[in-house]
Amino acid sequence: MSCSEKVCGASFPELIRCKRDGGQLSKQEIRSFVHGVRSGSIQEGQIGAMLMAIWQKGMVAEETMALTQEMMLSGEVLQWSKAWEGRVVDKHSTGGVGDKVSLPLAPALAACGCKVPMISGRGLAHTGGTLDKLESIPGFTVLQPVEKVHQILEDVGCCIVGQTETLVPADRVMYAMRDATSTVDSLPLITGSILSKKGAEGLDALVLDVKFGKAALYKDLHSARSLAQSMVTVGNSMGIRTGAVLSRMDAPIGRLVGNTLEVCEALECLKGRGPDDLQELVTSLGGYLLWMSGQAASLEKGQKALTEVLRNGAALQKFEAMLQAQGVSADIARSLCSAQCDYFLHLRPAEHKTELTAQSDGTVIDIDGMVVAQVLHKLGAGRTKAGENINHSVGAEVLVNLGQKVKKGEPWLRIHYDWPAGCTATL
Amino acid sequence: MSCSEKVCGASFPELIRCKRDGGQLSKQEIRSFVHGVRSGSIQEGQIGAMLMAIWQKGMVAEETMALTQEMMLSGEVLQWSKAWEGRVVDKHSTGGVGDKVSLPLAPALAACGCKVPMISGRGLAHTGGTLDKLESIPGFTVLQPVEKVHQILEDVGCCIVGQTETLVPADRVMYAMRDATSTVDSLPLITGSILSKKGAEGLDALVLDVKFGKAALYKDLHSARSLAQSMVTVGNSMGIRTGAVLSRMDAPIGRLVGNTLEVCEALECLKGRGPDDLQELVTSLGGYLLWMSGQAASLEKGQKALTEVLRNGAALQKFEAMLQAQGVSADIARSLCSAQCDYFLHLRPAEHKTELTAQSDGTVIDIDGMVVAQVLHKLGAGRTKAGENINHSVGAEVLVNLGQKVKKGEPWLRIHYDWPAGCTATL
Repeated sequence: MSCSEKVCGASFPELIRCKRDGGQLSKQEIRSFVHGVRSGSIQEGQIGAMLMAIWQKGMVAEETMALTQEMMLSGEVLQWSKAWEGRVVDKHSTGGVGDKVSLPLAPALAACGCKVPMISGRGLAHTGGTLDKLESIPGFTVLQPVEKVHQILEDVGCCIVGQTETLVPADRVMYAMRDATSTVDSLPLITGSILSKKGAEGLDALVLDVKFGKAALYKDLHSARSLAQSMVTVGNSMGIRTGAVLSRMDAPIGRLVGNTLEVCEALECLKGRGPDDLQELVTSLGGYLLWMSGQAASLEKGQKALTEVLRNGAALQKFEAMLQAQGVSADIARSLCSAQCDYFLHLRPAEHKTELTAQSDGTVIDIDGMVVAQVLHKLGAGRTKAGENINHSVGAEVLVNLGQKVKKGEPWLRIHYDWPAGCTATL
Repeated sequence: MSCSEKVCGASFPELIRCKRDGGQLSKQEIRSFVHGVRSGSIQEGQIGAMLMAIWQKGMVAEETMALTQEMMLSGEVLQWSKAWEGRVVDKHSTGGVGDKVSLPLAPALAACGCKVPMISGRGLAHTGGTLDKLESIPGFTVLQPVEKVHQILEDVGCCIVGQTETLVPADRVMYAMRDATSTVDSLPLITGSILSKKGAEGLDALVLDVKFGKAALYKDLHSARSLAQSMVTVGNSMGIRTGAVLSRMDAPIGRLVGNTLEVCEALECLKGRGPDDLQELVTSLGGYLLWMSGQAASLEKGQKALTEVLRNGAALQKFEAMLQAQGVSADIARSLCSAQCDYFLHLRPAEHKTELTAQSDGTVIDIDGMVVAQVLHKLGAGRTKAGENINHSVGAEVLVNLGQKVKKGEPWLRIHYDWPAGCTATL
C-alpha cells in the first residue's frame, strides 16, 4: 500500500499533490514552498515536480501574486530616499533580437528627472543580454554594491547593474531549474520571476515591453497579451504602477545586432541620430513611464519629453556620467559620447566582415530576426549555458529595409566575426 | 529571449519538453532518461519534472514497455538453471491491510514443484511489508547474496528476500523520488517499477493480485483493472506469462493485522487452519500460476494442488526449511511449525492489549481496513519514512465477522500495543 505521502503529513509532497491535481495553493502554502526553495529544505526533485505541475495546471491570479510576493521577500528589498517618491521607475522587456532599448532609455529617463535602478540580466539570449552589451565598453562594471547604487542614483539618476546575491535568491534557484526542466514558458513562473525582481528594486512605476512575433518568446499577440495582463495585474497588486506595451518583434530592432555593435547603435540613438524604430521604442516606453508616474500630464507629453532629451544631448550626458560612475575612464566615456567618434577606437572590432549578397533581383519582404540571432549565436555572440564566455565583437549589420528593391549581388547583411585560432572554415 | 533550451540541444530538457507536451518518447529517448537516472548525469530536478510530466500525460503501451525494460536492464538480471525452465514463478500484490499472502504462498508453490525467488519490499505501508513481517521471527535474514538465493531455490524451492543493490538500481532512485514528489499513483510508473523488478527476477510466470476498495491504493474496480491491463500487457511483452486477479480490499485479509500477528496467521494457514479468505487467496493465486506455467492442466486443478499442500503439511515443511535456510535456528523453525505451538514463546508479544467494545447493539455491516491500519501506523506498526524502525509487536485482532450481531459492550477489536517509556496516554 502506498498512501504514505498522505499519512506522513510531509508538507511538500502535499503541496505538489495539490497543484498536480489542479488545486489552488494558499498564500501560506506558497510561502512554505518558496521558503523551502530558499533554505534548501525542499529537495531539488520536488522543485522540479512542482515547477512541472505549475506549468501543467497554471495558477490563478491570487496564487501568482503570492508567488511573486514571496519570491521578492526571499531576499533584500531595496528602499529609496523619501525625496525620490514617485520617481523610481524601470522598464522590463521580454527580449528581442537587437533590443538595446535599455541603454538609451535609462539615461533618457534620468534626464527627465527619474531615478532608474535598472537591474538587468545576461540571460541566455542568442546575442547576449543588456549587461553583456555594456561590458563591451572597457572598464564598465556591472556588479555594484547597494551603497554604490544609491550613490549613482543620487549623482546621476540611473544605473544598469547585475543582480546581487542578496536580491531574490529564490528566483536564482528556480530560474536555473526552469531552464533545465523545460518549464520556462509558464505564465505564473515568468510573472513571478520578473516581477519579484522588479519588486525588489523598490519601484514606483514599471513599464513592460512585451514582444510578440517570429523573433520573440511568444509568437502570437494573444499569448503576449495574456502575459502582459498577468504581469500588469500582479505588478499593480504589489503597489507598483505597472503598464505594458505590446510590440511586434519579427525583424531586429534597429540595424545592428550583437553586443558591441548594439552599444554603437545605442550611442547613435542618444546622439539623436536614430534609428527610427529604436528611438520610437525609447520615447514610447519612457513616455508611458513619465505619464504613469505622474511626471507627465499625458502620454504624449511624456513622449515629447523623452524626444527632447534625446535631441538636446541631456540623455547622452547622463549616459556619459553613468559610464564613468560604473568604472569607465573619463576619457573613454567622453570620447564615446562625443558627436564624431570612431567607436572602434575604444571597442574591439571583429577580425572579419563578410557581406551576404542577394541571390537574385527582388524586394525585401521579410527579415527574420531569429535566424540572424541563431547565426550570431553559433558565431559566439551568445551563451548556451550560464557562465560561458561570449564574443562581444560578433554581430551583424542589416543593410536593407523592408520593402526595398535589391539587385542580384547586392549586399543585404554584413556579418562581423572572429574565427578561433586554427579554424579555416568560411561563411 | 529564452529559447536556450531549444538551441543548446541538451537532451534531457528536450525529453522533458516532449513528455510535458503529451508527446510519445521513443525507445532510445527512454533509454537515455533511464541511463541518466542510473548514472546520475540527469539532475534530480529533471527527474522530478519528468515524473510529474509522466504523471500528467501518461504513456502509451510502447513507452511503458520500453520504460520497464530499460529499468530492468539498469542492473543485474537473474538467470536460473535450465532444469527449472517454466517453473520459476512469483506473485505481486498491490498491497492491502493484513495481506500476508506471500508467507504461505511461496512455500505452497515450492511444495507444488515451483521455484519462487520472491523479492519483496518493506514499502511504506501502514503496517510493514512482507520483509518486516518475516523479521518478527528471530534470526530471519532478508538480505541474501545471489549465490545463496540460488542455493536456497535448489534446496528448498522458495525464498523471500530483499532487493539487493545490484537489481534495478534505476527504480531505487525513481521510487524514492516518486514518494517525495506525489507521483506514486501513475499507471506507467507503477507498471515500470513493479515489472522491472519482476523482470530482473528472471521469471517464467507471474500473477498479479491487484486490489481495489477502501483499503487499497485504487478505490474503484475500473482503475484497478486499468493497472492490471497495463501490467499484464507489459509483463507478457517481456516474455513473462503474466496474469492478474482483481480482488476486493475493504476489510483486512484474515483476522490479524500487524507484523508479528500476521506471521502467526500465516502459520495457521500453512497448518490448514484458515482463515478462509486467506486460504482462498493463496489457492487462487497459486492455482493461477500453476495453470499459466503449464504445471496444472486447468485453473481448478492448480487450485486443488495448492489446497492439498496446505492440508497435508507439505507447504508447512517448505516454510520451515525456508526459515532455516534464511537464518532461523532449527529449534525455533521446528517449534513455530509444530501443530501445537504457542507462537509467543518465540515471537515478542506487545506489552498491552485493549479491547474496543461496541457502543450499542447492532449488526457489523463494515470493517474499514484502512482505519485499522492508520491506527496501527500511529502506534508504530508502520513507517512514515524509509529506514525508520517499526514495532513488530503492534497489531490488531478483528473479533467479529461481517453480518454478525453484537451487543453493547461486546468487544469487536483487540489492539496490541506498547507505550514508549514515560508515555501515559490511553487508547
